[in-house]
Amino acid sequence: MHYGIVRYVLGLILKIEAALLVLPVLIGLIYREKETIAFVIMAVSCLLVGTLLTIRKPKKLVFYAREGLVIVALSWVIISIFGALPFVINRDIPRFTDALFETISGFTTTGASILLNVEELSHVSLFWRSFTHWVGGMGVIVFMLAILPMAGGYNAQLMRAESPGPSFGKIRPKVRETAAVLYKIYFGMTVAEIIILLISGMHWFDTLCISFGSAGTGGFGVRADSCGSYTLIQQTIITVFITLFGVNFNAYYILLLTKDKKAVFKSEEVRWYLLIIAGAIAAITLNIRSSFESLYLAIHHAAFQVASIITTTGFGTVDFDLWPEFSKGILVLLMFIGACAGSTGGGFKVSRVIILAKSIYRQLIQFIYPRSVSVIKLDGKTADEEIVTGVSTYLATYTFLFLASILLLTVDHRFDLITDFTAVTATFNNIGPGLAAVGPTRNFADMSTLSKYVLMFDMLAGRLELYPILMLFVPRIWKKN
Amino acid sequence: MHYGIVRYVLGLILKIEAALLVLPVLIGLIYREKETIAFVIMAVSCLLVGTLLTIRKPKKLVFYAREGLVIVALSWVIISIFGALPFVINRDIPRFTDALFETISGFTTTGASILLNVEELSHVSLFWRSFTHWVGGMGVIVFMLAILPMAGGYNAQLMRAESPGPSFGKIRPKVRETAAVLYKIYFGMTVAEIIILLISGMHWFDTLCISFGSAGTGGFGVRADSCGSYTLIQQTIITVFITLFGVNFNAYYILLLTKDKKAVFKSEEVRWYLLIIAGAIAAITLNIRSSFESLYLAIHHAAFQVASIITTTGFGTVDFDLWPEFSKGILVLLMFIGACAGSTGGGFKVSRVIILAKSIYRQLIQFIYPRSVSVIKLDGKTADEEIVTGVSTYLATYTFLFLASILLLTVDHRFDLITDFTAVTATFNNIGPGLAAVGPTRNFADMSTLSKYVLMFDMLAGRLELYPILMLFVPRIWKKN
Repeated sequence: MHYGIVRYVLGLILKIEAALLVLPVLIGLIYREKETIAFVIMAVSCLLVGTLLTIRKPKKLVFYAREGLVIVALSWVIISIFGALPFVINRDIPRFTDALFETISGFTTTGASILLNVEELSHVSLFWRSFTHWVGGMGVIVFMLAILPMAGGYNAQLMRAESPGPSFGKIRPKVRETAAVLYKIYFGMTVAEIIILLISGMHWFDTLCISFGSAGTGGFGVRADSCGSYTLIQQTIITVFITLFGVNFNAYYILLLTKDKKAVFKSEEVRWYLLIIAGAIAAITLNIRSSFESLYLAIHHAAFQVASIITTTGFGTVDFDLWPEFSKGILVLLMFIGACAGSTGGGFKVSRVIILAKSIYRQLIQFIYPRSVSVIKLDGKTADEEIVTGVSTYLATYTFLFLASILLLTVDHRFDLITDFTAVTATFNNIGPGLAAVGPTRNFADMSTLSKYVLMFDMLAGRLELYPILMLFVPRIWKKN
Repeated sequence: MHYGIVRYVLGLILKIEAALLVLPVLIGLIYREKETIAFVIMAVSCLLVGTLLTIRKPKKLVFYAREGLVIVALSWVIISIFGALPFVINRDIPRFTDALFETISGFTTTGASILLNVEELSHVSLFWRSFTHWVGGMGVIVFMLAILPMAGGYNAQLMRAESPGPSFGKIRPKVRETAAVLYKIYFGMTVAEIIILLISGMHWFDTLCISFGSAGTGGFGVRADSCGSYTLIQQTIITVFITLFGVNFNAYYILLLTKDKKAVFKSEEVRWYLLIIAGAIAAITLNIRSSFESLYLAIHHAAFQVASIITTTGFGTVDFDLWPEFSKGILVLLMFIGACAGSTGGGFKVSRVIILAKSIYRQLIQFIYPRSVSVIKLDGKTADEEIVTGVSTYLATYTFLFLASILLLTVDHRFDLITDFTAVTATFNNIGPGLAAVGPTRNFADMSTLSKYVLMFDMLAGRLELYPILMLFVPRIWKKN
């Protein structure tokens, strides 16, 4: 471990956070809220600590996988700790554990909340809360690559650590340029959503927060009923945008480069992603039809919930915990599948599911033709066996962490197993709401402190593709080199 | 697919079942029960159909993986169908679906029941029910190898298809000889349990049924409270024996060959198996201590339930559905881990868990030393990468089937998710009881017909290590060669 560079980069991260904290201060000035002072204090603090950490520049700015992974993991932890303090200082969320939970939930684009009533919060805090989604949204791929003034060998490794899901294809070595393009796409789509929502008549403050939550597929809302009180048209706009933010950004990148409109559908992952969404909407619509006045309304709410869950956003228009078991079963399944790799969504990722399904089929075929050698193809190209093995190991790691988390949550014995199970499902996959006591109309406030820390770990692990956070617990990585 | 040989072997299997059906007839004669006639009818029917199928001997008796897998899968289906009919004929279980569920549950050594009150059953039916556990117990490894008068290239493949779990080491190519030794161990241990239980004062009929259930790690009891009304000493005897039947039979085999008493503990899997049991007993004892009169009783019942669940037997002495969530969480975790590979137990198998844990650790280390090549060792020997990949693919297959089954169960929307979840867990891992509406004091009677067939599929798939049953749905396997 090259400690100097870790310190230096974390310092840079804090300086960036100082800059980010200026935005809520502006909102606070507009609303003339006294809670704003906390954000000023923390912006200054971040700048001070950041400057202290970056005074001494390390001799070499090249680093390796181990430093990359540790920096990624610690960045998310440190921006969350500093980002939580404004809530504690301005008493909007007085307990530190709760404030940290809320902020990690924000930066990891989870959207799980400990707030009993969001509408009690000051605008400045509400804004910061949603803004963390947007910052976290594109993950550190773009965040760090577009901002950290560094280049060199570590970039590819960072890419590996932080790009959501196994990446195939078009993101080329010129990482910073690519990152800039992705950043523009992300920014452009967010602005598009803000404008369209404004045209639809939504209040400007809501359009900002909801668009940040959509872009990061986060899910923090600013109303007690999440998106329930918006008009049907506004809900439809949100449905479309969260679905778009769940698409692999590689597809948009290629679309921009080639101007070929069919390019998006050439991606096997995107095709499956859309097929799964369509199938889930159809199945749930049939299942919940009778509880809505019209077929249109049933489709509308099925579509919103399906898009919200598969993209791991977590917005809601209705309380799906009241839906029949079959619909809930489908939603739970979607929670695990998650969005496309290379999107802002969480979960296991559609491309991983495809690779696993193909490796199962290959295994079956090999029983019939034991001497045959078959490769797994994605988008018509042979997938490296290393990727196939990597996905399998990912599933194993995922399963272990998942089961261990549930067991730790049962220590409290405050809740039933379904609450513990879906609490882990909703945080580990960065969704937000689960079922039962952590269902869409309820929240994580009543969880014990132990459970909250377990779930914070799950949110970070889930968002950072498991390994960076796990690495922190491997003693060997801390060995000085 | 070489249809001739499939037909021929299935015919042999039915002839064997005819012979097996003679045993309950003897019990029926002792008890002078009119229900016995159904078993006579079915013994004769099996013999007739079996003879018809074996009249024409195929020219070549050598076959390949595809035939092996199909024969294994269809054998379990066909013996279950014929084995279910006595229950229907003598009206002990009048509905065919229920009788088939009970018989598949028996032959797969699951022990999940649809009977509301086992004590209403005739002795002859109760005996047959428990005897199916014993027959299924050692799996078709021994069952077929010791009985089918065949030799040749297919044996090794059958071994692969049916030995429970990845096999390392000592089971040598001379499959029939090895099978005979394993058969003797199995038989000897069953007889030992019967004798010791008889000495303890248990009724001879119960000793037979309980010993069959222990040996096959099945779990059908003959009392309404499973093992609750036996004495503490009798319960302890059962605890010890089910634990022994969950040990990898390779270990006993080596013990017999080498006479080295430490041989058993040289197996990494056995050491972990015992460690997990000890850890689970300790954790649960601490958790349930207050609800028992003495520490001794708490340990006693924790040990019984832990042994019963990890070996996937499913006997019970108390209603663990009433235990605190933490204890239930541990038991659910044990349901997934399962017993040792090469034992009569089901579940994912301890050795697979070890291999996955090691491959996760290897992945982490590879992030630190990207250019290092590291192998996974088991019992000090390098495990073939093919085995490591195989285990990962097994996990993927397992997860897919698991989630798909739960989704199919929710179609009924009769039960809560925890019932559906544990119903699949309990059948897919061949345990028996789950939690909530399928908890230890309840049963599967109220499930819909669709759910029952899904769970029957799960029991068969789980018992036969997934692939043989899945192969039946791959069209390519049915192509004539």
